[in-house]
Amino acid sequence: MKIALDAMGGDFAPQAAVDGAVLAAQQLAGKAQIVLIGQEEAVRPLLQQHGAAADSLAFIPATQVIAMGEHPAKAYQQKQDSSIAVGYKMLHAGEIDAFCSAGSTGAMLVGAMFSVKAVPGVLRPAIANFVPKLHGGYGIFLDVGANAECKPEMLEQFGELGSLYAQYVLGITTPKVGLMNLGEEEGKGTALLQAAHQLLKINPHIHFIGNIEGRDLFNDKADVIVCDGYTGNVMLKMAESIYDILAERHIVDPFFEKFNYEAFGGSPILGINDNAIIGHGVSTPTAICSMLLQGYQMAESGISDQIKATFKS
Amino acid sequence: MKIALDAMGGDFAPQAAVDGAVLAAQQLAGKAQIVLIGQEEAVRPLLQQHGAAADSLAFIPATQVIAMGEHPAKAYQQKQDSSIAVGYKMLHAGEIDAFCSAGSTGAMLVGAMFSVKAVPGVLRPAIANFVPKLHGGYGIFLDVGANAECKPEMLEQFGELGSLYAQYVLGITTPKVGLMNLGEEEGKGTALLQAAHQLLKINPHIHFIGNIEGRDLFNDKADVIVCDGYTGNVMLKMAESIYDILAERHIVDPFFEKFNYEAFGGSPILGINDNAIIGHGVSTPTAICSMLLQGYQMAESGISDQIKATFKS
Repeated sequence: MKIALDAMGGDFAPQAAVDGAVLAAQQLAGKAQIVLIGQEEAVRPLLQQHGAAADSLAFIPATQVIAMGEHPAKAYQQKQDSSIAVGYKMLHAGEIDAFCSAGSTGAMLVGAMFSVKAVPGVLRPAIANFVPKLHGGYGIFLDVGANAECKPEMLEQFGELGSLYAQYVLGITTPKVGLMNLGEEEGKGTALLQAAHQLLKINPHIHFIGNIEGRDLFNDKADVIVCDGYTGNVMLKMAESIYDILAERHIVDPFFEKFNYEAFGGSPILGINDNAIIGHGVSTPTAICSMLLQGYQMAESGISDQIKATFKS
Repeated sequence: MKIALDAMGGDFAPQAAVDGAVLAAQQLAGKAQIVLIGQEEAVRPLLQQHGAAADSLAFIPATQVIAMGEHPAKAYQQKQDSSIAVGYKMLHAGEIDAFCSAGSTGAMLVGAMFSVKAVPGVLRPAIANFVPKLHGGYGIFLDVGANAECKPEMLEQFGELGSLYAQYVLGITTPKVGLMNLGEEEGKGTALLQAAHQLLKINPHIHFIGNIEGRDLFNDKADVIVCDGYTGNVMLKMAESIYDILAERHIVDPFFEKFNYEAFGGSPILGINDNAIIGHGVSTPTAICSMLLQGYQMAESGISDQIKATFKS
């Protein structure tokens, strides 16, 4: 199995990317190979610094880099030899089993749609994020930013995609799916939420438990929380800020420590024909390593095949 | 000046209501009188328990109570002698200067619209909530639940209403108004957010600083945060749950202590022709007291006249 990393992606690339890749290679030894994609002159010397520890890594050159400020679609199409474009080409060709990048979120989404494409039947792929649960384990919520504007059918599908991820990657047997709303009663919320509620309720592939509220993000009511990409993004960034504030105030607590994005390293794009993960711009080597391990888990679980099978039927 | 309280509202009413009212009466002595509205047989004995401390309070009987589970509009219209209906009648008649209740949010909203009504020019009143700022003081965000579904013009008005409250009640000279979005760039977000951004940008009554993100809730970027009632409600309940989790985990910190709703006691309804505040269902005497003090501050500031003057022009 081959798990690839965009060596040029992230604020601290390529150093943090290479360091994280070496860490992941050690942890995945005998199970998967790490493939680094990036500019040869930037990546090679860093690999050499790691000596024998970097021997197991594969390197694929890509001469271009998509910067964070660039227009995603334009940059992706114009820079066909960028690390992101090369990564997606390899993913599409089946040369790698997962592709991870802490680079431009927009370019990662565009690349996914242009190369491996959305699973037939999936209206719009979504980005999922992890949320620690008070009584242990993690849940996920989606979408967190790929789709600000949603239709009821999209929210329904987010429920299905999230449920499959929770089941096959997080190992939750019958994931509880909840719809983020401003009240628990069925008739609550916007027209979008009311319609989505009805669709989720009758969807045979999921265990829908109804509406949940902002206070239920961290409790056990739902393993999978469905929301539009705007609301999910606000929740995600608010949770991140809480983590940062606690850290700044030197408050150490094992539950809140689980807010640390480094534990997962990235957010999977769900609903595409392969495994892709978008990392945080500020990714550290630890975060990069976690993202690659998650990529391995996704590939190992066969989640994208599960998604294809579900949406085929 | 007279500040009235629904003695029957809240999970711990009438006990917590009466106790809180007595606390507030002490703090407002010489400035305002507290008026308790409720069922005589329930309230009188509690007042007597306080002895001389309760002497300054006025009591107005109301034979009915609107329960939390009742349909707001139906209950309000059918129970014209309920504490909420009597309170709004007195507010409308100018017999009191502010009306506070920890009872049914829905009935408080309906009552406001049926009695004192929305300020001419205000499309939809909003409920505002307070947010502690890392560098001191508080900001507000609105709407937090009165309007799940919003139009761009409503969000624009929330910016104006919030700015006036921040200026006249919180004492912030030139409040910075931010639009909660999923990215800072101008073109970000849903069609609603994009259109609201343009309206806020050219509104002459406010100092609009642009889009902000979920991570900016607690920092100094914006004093007034504009969002639809769904998103605001999710943010509010998420913040409340963080406070509860910290308390359960015995984490004591002065910043997070400011998340405690008891400090303000309630959320003002902005955009109506008078001063009304909705308290938390679980209101303690401290929270009730804070709500009454906030009611006094609102009345004293002349905020509702400022709102009327702004929307007249």
